[in-house]
Amino acid sequence: MSSKIESVVDPDPTVLDIESCSSFSLAAVTHSFATAPPPPETHNKVPLPKSKRTLAAFRDWAGECFFPDDPLHHFKKRKSFCGKLVLALQNLFPIILWGSDYNLNLLKSDFISGVTIASLAIPQGISYANIANLPPTMGLYSSFLPPMIYLVMGSSMDLAVGPSSIVSVVLGSMLSEAVSPETDPSLYLQLALTSTFIAGLFQASLGFLRLGFLVEFLSKPTLMGFTGGAAVITILQQLKGLTGAVHFTKKTGIVPVMASFLGHVNEWNWRTILVGFAFLLFLQTAKSISKKRPNLFLIAATAPLISVIISTIILFCLKSQNHGIQTVGPLKRGLNHPSANLLLLGGPYFTLSLKTGFITGILSLAEGIAVGRAFGSMKSYQIDGNKEMTALGMMNVVGSFASCFITTGSFSRSAVNYNSGCKTAISNLVMALVVLITMMFLMPLFYYTPNVVLSVIVIVSVIGLINFGVAMRLWKVDKLDFLAHVCAFLGVLFISVPIGLGIAVCISIFKILVSVARPNIVDIGNVLGTQSFRSLEQYKEAVRIPSFLILRIEFPIYFASSIYLQDRILRWVREEEERTIKMKESGIKFIILDLSAVTQIDTSGIDALLELQKTLNKKSLQLVLANPNGDMTNKLYVSEAWKEFGSDCIYMSVSEAVSAVTCMAKTQT
Amino acid sequence: MSSKIESVVDPDPTVLDIESCSSFSLAAVTHSFATAPPPPETHNKVPLPKSKRTLAAFRDWAGECFFPDDPLHHFKKRKSFCGKLVLALQNLFPIILWGSDYNLNLLKSDFISGVTIASLAIPQGISYANIANLPPTMGLYSSFLPPMIYLVMGSSMDLAVGPSSIVSVVLGSMLSEAVSPETDPSLYLQLALTSTFIAGLFQASLGFLRLGFLVEFLSKPTLMGFTGGAAVITILQQLKGLTGAVHFTKKTGIVPVMASFLGHVNEWNWRTILVGFAFLLFLQTAKSISKKRPNLFLIAATAPLISVIISTIILFCLKSQNHGIQTVGPLKRGLNHPSANLLLLGGPYFTLSLKTGFITGILSLAEGIAVGRAFGSMKSYQIDGNKEMTALGMMNVVGSFASCFITTGSFSRSAVNYNSGCKTAISNLVMALVVLITMMFLMPLFYYTPNVVLSVIVIVSVIGLINFGVAMRLWKVDKLDFLAHVCAFLGVLFISVPIGLGIAVCISIFKILVSVARPNIVDIGNVLGTQSFRSLEQYKEAVRIPSFLILRIEFPIYFASSIYLQDRILRWVREEEERTIKMKESGIKFIILDLSAVTQIDTSGIDALLELQKTLNKKSLQLVLANPNGDMTNKLYVSEAWKEFGSDCIYMSVSEAVSAVTCMAKTQT
Repeated sequence: MSSKIESVVDPDPTVLDIESCSSFSLAAVTHSFATAPPPPETHNKVPLPKSKRTLAAFRDWAGECFFPDDPLHHFKKRKSFCGKLVLALQNLFPIILWGSDYNLNLLKSDFISGVTIASLAIPQGISYANIANLPPTMGLYSSFLPPMIYLVMGSSMDLAVGPSSIVSVVLGSMLSEAVSPETDPSLYLQLALTSTFIAGLFQASLGFLRLGFLVEFLSKPTLMGFTGGAAVITILQQLKGLTGAVHFTKKTGIVPVMASFLGHVNEWNWRTILVGFAFLLFLQTAKSISKKRPNLFLIAATAPLISVIISTIILFCLKSQNHGIQTVGPLKRGLNHPSANLLLLGGPYFTLSLKTGFITGILSLAEGIAVGRAFGSMKSYQIDGNKEMTALGMMNVVGSFASCFITTGSFSRSAVNYNSGCKTAISNLVMALVVLITMMFLMPLFYYTPNVVLSVIVIVSVIGLINFGVAMRLWKVDKLDFLAHVCAFLGVLFISVPIGLGIAVCISIFKILVSVARPNIVDIGNVLGTQSFRSLEQYKEAVRIPSFLILRIEFPIYFASSIYLQDRILRWVREEEERTIKMKESGIKFIILDLSAVTQIDTSGIDALLELQKTLNKKSLQLVLANPNGDMTNKLYVSEAWKEFGSDCIYMSVSEAVSAVTCMAKTQT
Repeated sequence: MSSKIESVVDPDPTVLDIESCSSFSLAAVTHSFATAPPPPETHNKVPLPKSKRTLAAFRDWAGECFFPDDPLHHFKKRKSFCGKLVLALQNLFPIILWGSDYNLNLLKSDFISGVTIASLAIPQGISYANIANLPPTMGLYSSFLPPMIYLVMGSSMDLAVGPSSIVSVVLGSMLSEAVSPETDPSLYLQLALTSTFIAGLFQASLGFLRLGFLVEFLSKPTLMGFTGGAAVITILQQLKGLTGAVHFTKKTGIVPVMASFLGHVNEWNWRTILVGFAFLLFLQTAKSISKKRPNLFLIAATAPLISVIISTIILFCLKSQNHGIQTVGPLKRGLNHPSANLLLLGGPYFTLSLKTGFITGILSLAEGIAVGRAFGSMKSYQIDGNKEMTALGMMNVVGSFASCFITTGSFSRSAVNYNSGCKTAISNLVMALVVLITMMFLMPLFYYTPNVVLSVIVIVSVIGLINFGVAMRLWKVDKLDFLAHVCAFLGVLFISVPIGLGIAVCISIFKILVSVARPNIVDIGNVLGTQSFRSLEQYKEAVRIPSFLILRIEFPIYFASSIYLQDRILRWVREEEERTIKMKESGIKFIILDLSAVTQIDTSGIDALLELQKTLNKKSLQLVLANPNGDMTNKLYVSEAWKEFGSDCIYMSVSEAVSAVTCMAKTQT
């Protein structure tokens, strides 16, 4: 073994010094501690990065932080003002970019998918307005104007825009806790519009200020737990429609809902329940057929509309009989009403609107962006999250001026859109036109539509969001992700939407903070036959080097971890000393900190390293640093810690540090 | 150059395969892409860590998190119940441990230092009670009982316990914003005692639950900015005593204080001002002498007491004259009164007490622990932060039952204690006894002590906390630390104590979250003459390898960064492709992600890597992972991402990945 590694020394005289030091010899370290070594000055030095001016450094940092995808890189190529203006307009209104290449073939595809999603959007729109405790017409209004805004501003080609089940239930539950939609419908409507406006403003400003990454703090496990809980709430609320009960609680927690559900058994209508289960069976069958055979997607896509049509016809035929099945009732024909004058930007309920707008805004962003990205990556185009946020935000701001409640890119409708072969956002326009025709001419037809069918449509569209397989996978891979997931689920179910969401976000952030406060420290050794040093626990091939304790710190050294780090390293030293005494090995003399994985350091971290050095020196141990990165090197230098360590204590790699320190020790003895 | 690296290949046949692969040849990659390579299966595999049971993994994690210093390691050695009981008692009451070795020599040292700190503690105690708007006697009560509690429970040998200037001003300013200490002194006193009780309870439970690391989130730059701001506030409040003004605002912001200061010029008393400046000069001179010659520490330590004595004598002599200098007035002799019945654990002011207790508790912890650690490291003994918190907490809980306000380890008095040669916490006992004698017999002597001298003592003790050099250093080393520092300073000065502190903590946490959301990605290359890969920007010796884009991710891959990571890597790919076209180099074929610095990954991170792989595959690029650590390897495995990548795409190091991938490409062509 020893001969092998020693033979690595290079015969080329010009690079001899560097080579003979960069490749250290374990055997030499172990056995020949006293023979003369090459001078240690020949090791590769850790170079100092070029010092940047503060402003330049800040510009770089801000660029990485807020413009990671360099969205203006096209601008750099065009020189003329006109060219830049065109680019800016294209950036703001992507339709200019793709609209110029639009042709009849594309229109054909978009027309088919537009009509298909309209057939889904109309019953869903009415149903979701129902969940949000708003008039059914608002569901149609919201499926008409917002898609047209998205058409010109959005950058996804596959997103189908409109109300979403989860966001609707959150809006409904948050507002109805303070204001009853039955006793004070006009105030409730005003609050819903105000919340939509605030959500839109919040979304657009997040996008405009390029703070979209804040949405990413809502991790996927959290979101999925949250949606699961919200889906259960949504289904529970449909129990009213499903049983035909007249009185029902407006609370969202599982306990009051179940109490209310079981407390009004006398109001149940068996005909309603029968119709409900029949259509539930029909819709669920249609859905599972489409799931098994994706080319039969049309069955699932049109099933809701078919249900509405069939049930309406049946109820129309039975209208003279006293069947007790509740129907939608009279709906006004006509376009969206202007509603800017209804916004309540002040007054006692403003805090509520603010909170509701903030939460629904962030949820609908999370859904819309995730859906856009998912379909984008299927067709290999990238979505700029910030641009998309501006589009979704503007959609809601304008929507709130025209009687629309909060809308986003819906997953179920976008999937249908994608499957039915949409090519561009024109499919949204087609959908909007179909909805327009419905609003103008077909509204009275919904008079006899039974509420129970709307409830069933909602149930079928959200039931897939309750997925216990996800929780199982999370438990297997990451326990804290699982915890966030379950807390979001249970919090939403048993406490309330904002608190459930809050708890889950706190757990996610707690996870980050704990790992910052308690960085991993790993005992590493040389992987035999290489110059690599790896965890002794992970790699069986790795061996300890006598007289050395080599620790790899696996996290930034921040204020939060600086004290822990000192304590923990001193404990490593103590334990290693006890071990060497027990095993009758030679005691440790050098402690090498492998800083490869220490990506950042702050002033507290530097102080901690200096303090550690002092403490170890008092114990006659030498502290050596290996492989500090650019940022760290720079900070060590400007803080003058570099001098206190001395360049003899900082090396490019662990193997260089080991060989250099060994050399030095040999020359000293 | 090329011959050099190729000669590294080892002649020993038994390790030939591993060696020939682990040492790759840049020259070979560049020029001889088509010659036959050794089979790639011989590369070092990344081993899977042993899978742990959930409970064991949790136990390990909790152990690292809450017991990093393994405080029970002594217990493991003792087997008998009696031995363990003795250890447990020693742990709770460290005095048992060191008390048994106590001797007359130690007592001699402790006696001298105890008397010395008492001479500082008495005037400071009265002055700090003054800042907190509490009766002067409470300052002495708080310098008597708490040190005795600390004596039996504390683990620092150098800490001098008593009221602290910063905590006193925070207590005073927070409470007096809601309740006037002049118009309702008894309610004010009750609130102060309640806050002390809550602070103590909070401190003790933090220690007991081993959550002491939460205090570490108050970073040093934040704390120093905060103390600087609080020192300015403290000095501003002394303007009342210094000028002899009768009316003065109770607000703490700089603006109302300056307005009040300049608004009552007519109340100024020139004699008071004269006395004030004389003693200010005296104390500051004494302090600067001691600073220059640490062996003359006695001058600074006794100067406050000397000032009090001299000024009291002068005022006593002048008592028949109408000089207008305000004095302390009559003080009651006697011991601490019991005050448990005064605690207000409920009622309208409970929130205020809770807030004040929480903030003063955390501040006094931060001060006490930092001071204890600092002197501990000077004498080479370690302080267990959690044990110390329990001691400080119990001290305040018991103190609140006996008319003491919040106390902690004070920096100035501990420094005097250390310098005057204290050996153990017995010096605290000596101090307490001296204070006891003062309380029992000498109280009436303070009748003629002028308030202005107390103000001067406060000013001199806090003026050193305003240190602009710190801000300069922070600016140079870490801009975000500087920002937290300045915000804490200005926030405390212009807004309020809790808000200033809150802003600074938020900045510190924001700093962590930003670096989590925006991990650094570095373009790395081979350092010529080694197998190491380092940043191309930092190391001039590092060179790119044709056909490869090698990126080092410098942070955990968490939910918050998973989307950024995909975007940013795709941008690297785009830019690298543009660069190779411009430079007419061969296009990139492989992307290696060096995961050495990726210390953790979660489910979102794994999904992001899989998604990235798909996207790159669509562009005919191959994604290869190098050096995942134990935790990551495990998660990749249990999530089955390992299979999707295939073991051909995961290597132990970048150099192995480069050589293996090159080999494979050669065999395929």
